[in-house]
Amino acid sequence: MFTLEKFQEASKIVKQVTNPTKLMYSQYLSDQTGNEVYLKPENLQKTGAYKLRGAYYKISTLSDEERSKGLIAASAGNHAQGVAYAAKQYGVKATIVMPTTTPLIKVNRTKALGAEVVLYGEIYDEACAHAYKLAEEHGYTFIHPFDDTDVATGQGTVMMEIFEELEDVDMVLVPIGGGGLATGISSAAKVLNPNIKVIGVEPAGAASLKAALEAGKPTPLNKVRTIADGTAVRTIGSVVYPYLKENLDSVVTVTDEELVASFLDVVENHKMVAENSGLLSVAAAKNLDVKGKKVVCVVSGGNMDVDTMSTELQNGLRMRDRIFDVTALLSDNPGVLAKLVTVIAKHNGNVMDVEHIHNLSTGKEDSVRVNISLKAFGTDHKNEIIEALREEGFNVKEGRAGNVGN
Amino acid sequence: MFTLEKFQEASKIVKQVTNPTKLMYSQYLSDQTGNEVYLKPENLQKTGAYKLRGAYYKISTLSDEERSKGLIAASAGNHAQGVAYAAKQYGVKATIVMPTTTPLIKVNRTKALGAEVVLYGEIYDEACAHAYKLAEEHGYTFIHPFDDTDVATGQGTVMMEIFEELEDVDMVLVPIGGGGLATGISSAAKVLNPNIKVIGVEPAGAASLKAALEAGKPTPLNKVRTIADGTAVRTIGSVVYPYLKENLDSVVTVTDEELVASFLDVVENHKMVAENSGLLSVAAAKNLDVKGKKVVCVVSGGNMDVDTMSTELQNGLRMRDRIFDVTALLSDNPGVLAKLVTVIAKHNGNVMDVEHIHNLSTGKEDSVRVNISLKAFGTDHKNEIIEALREEGFNVKEGRAGNVGN
Repeated sequence: MFTLEKFQEASKIVKQVTNPTKLMYSQYLSDQTGNEVYLKPENLQKTGAYKLRGAYYKISTLSDEERSKGLIAASAGNHAQGVAYAAKQYGVKATIVMPTTTPLIKVNRTKALGAEVVLYGEIYDEACAHAYKLAEEHGYTFIHPFDDTDVATGQGTVMMEIFEELEDVDMVLVPIGGGGLATGISSAAKVLNPNIKVIGVEPAGAASLKAALEAGKPTPLNKVRTIADGTAVRTIGSVVYPYLKENLDSVVTVTDEELVASFLDVVENHKMVAENSGLLSVAAAKNLDVKGKKVVCVVSGGNMDVDTMSTELQNGLRMRDRIFDVTALLSDNPGVLAKLVTVIAKHNGNVMDVEHIHNLSTGKEDSVRVNISLKAFGTDHKNEIIEALREEGFNVKEGRAGNVGN
Repeated sequence: MFTLEKFQEASKIVKQVTNPTKLMYSQYLSDQTGNEVYLKPENLQKTGAYKLRGAYYKISTLSDEERSKGLIAASAGNHAQGVAYAAKQYGVKATIVMPTTTPLIKVNRTKALGAEVVLYGEIYDEACAHAYKLAEEHGYTFIHPFDDTDVATGQGTVMMEIFEELEDVDMVLVPIGGGGLATGISSAAKVLNPNIKVIGVEPAGAASLKAALEAGKPTPLNKVRTIADGTAVRTIGSVVYPYLKENLDSVVTVTDEELVASFLDVVENHKMVAENSGLLSVAAAKNLDVKGKKVVCVVSGGNMDVDTMSTELQNGLRMRDRIFDVTALLSDNPGVLAKLVTVIAKHNGNVMDVEHIHNLSTGKEDSVRVNISLKAFGTDHKNEIIEALREEGFNVKEGRAGNVGN
């Protein structure tokens, strides 16, 4: 089914509309891992993700009649823009059903790409059901975000481009949500050279392929919880599952914390923004147990809202001890707060927020709880400040008051 | 002095060590401005800025004896890494004097590039004076960050590359700090084609070239205040000033607010991180009074600390009314706070922080001040929430309590 010829044909077709997202050598990840690591930056792809590849190739396989009737898809994310963009390039009408809770900016961006947007349902499943209904009523072709071999073939063109630039690639790391991208990439890799290892990477809180492999068939997860919203899929695609099972060499997971760390790493070392799902491959690269290999991390998308980005940076700064909290019980006497913040100042801690609550007890002792958020240069500096406070007699604990049970 | 042959030679030399930072077409800026706008992404250059160009070319002009003695520079920023990188490529020893207040990460990154780092002085001027002293003692060649025609020639290779890719470019926007990059680019542009307009862009709070042009000669600014720290220079370079006066077509300024807006725009539309100084050109592009022109914005660097980035995103979200505060005086009765936050909840406002201070007066009326920070989707949503609160009888003001004088 997935033949070299098909991928070659898809590659030619898809290149008509995509950016050439050239491999970026990563000195940082190479140094960190002892391998030769490259990023395939699909975050720099048109619409900010690889999704248009599958959609555009899918349209190319339709009959003139199917195309004249138009397409439909349900998505609040990258698939919406991918389908809208691909349809516009082909001159085909596209309808995108989005949940009514979709942020306006995503609605507008999809409209700006020429698609008709239908807002329906509170959650994705309702929007999706409505899309199927409209497809039946109007004869639209439903473009599935992942569980379709044509769509997966289109996504596989990512692998064809990697191979064009780096024929002796040893290993490719690819994010897994529903499995479309991973199916395309792993299947293309195996027809190009069966020795290329392809490793699927899932969020630890949404490991639907891992669950399927354990159960022997696609099985819905009871709970999905991950910051990688683009790959937060409950059930791996049942159409693509057999190919994933056959062509992936292994499946690994990464935690939210690892994604946050990778976000900061990519920003600092590559001056690029990637979304959490796109960073799964980068996070997994740091856990590899190989050395001296040529490794490609597919950074599948870059559509992160600036609000999410701000939260992610804050959390990243906390993980690095660039921001931390101290809390202490003080006596209710003049000068105690002054002494505390003077110690912090002497050690170059930069105060962000202060919460100072008094009258916790009737006596003077331990009657005030103070919580201070601080900026520091990192763990050593944090420890230096806490140590200095303790030496001055303050019984400080690290963390926010609420966390340490004062 | 700045001849085509010299720029061609410099271009050949500099390409031995630089990334080919290909022009990126900006659909977003093109739509916004009515021009055909491209970015020259020197934020994706090695070391995260254009600086290594000037340093590498400068080394190529030195004698073997000068090279064998080594180089010295003073910098806490991009110039430090640029010189360190260039020197390493040439196999030449480099010493970088940095103020003792330099963040450890910058010290370590410079060391990692093979340079010897000397920490000296509290501010840049002291570090710089020490660097001159060491240069004299040890026979090191001092590499000035901007006020040197050889350094400027190296920076001019940016223009050569723009011209290679886009021969019919009409206009180039370039950030100005001390003037090295702008001298190189404007001088190269004029020998390539005198019709290419080159516009220098300064931070409004550090417009040292504008001040010089008004005074007729380089003149120190009394005060420098800008978030564009890489271009926060008090006095334009006196060596390069005559070339700037001759070859720049005009000089414009942009505000800190415009830089914050541009940071978000570049992150959202190009998935790239640029530092504030690098964004001067992008911010200025939005104020152009031309249409239908081919315009290139030189994005000169991308080295923004993640802490600064976090602050910048927060401010950007506030500018877009994605985050805002309301403050109100409430009566001291049960249920008033509940009613207030219920109104907010009904209109999908997402509460971030609540400050609730009671006993402001002896009576019940206006005895509580509440300040709430909220997340919203933008200005319309903000206005909807404030309007709804007023309709329910709350006398709310926008802004933080401290700002509105309650």
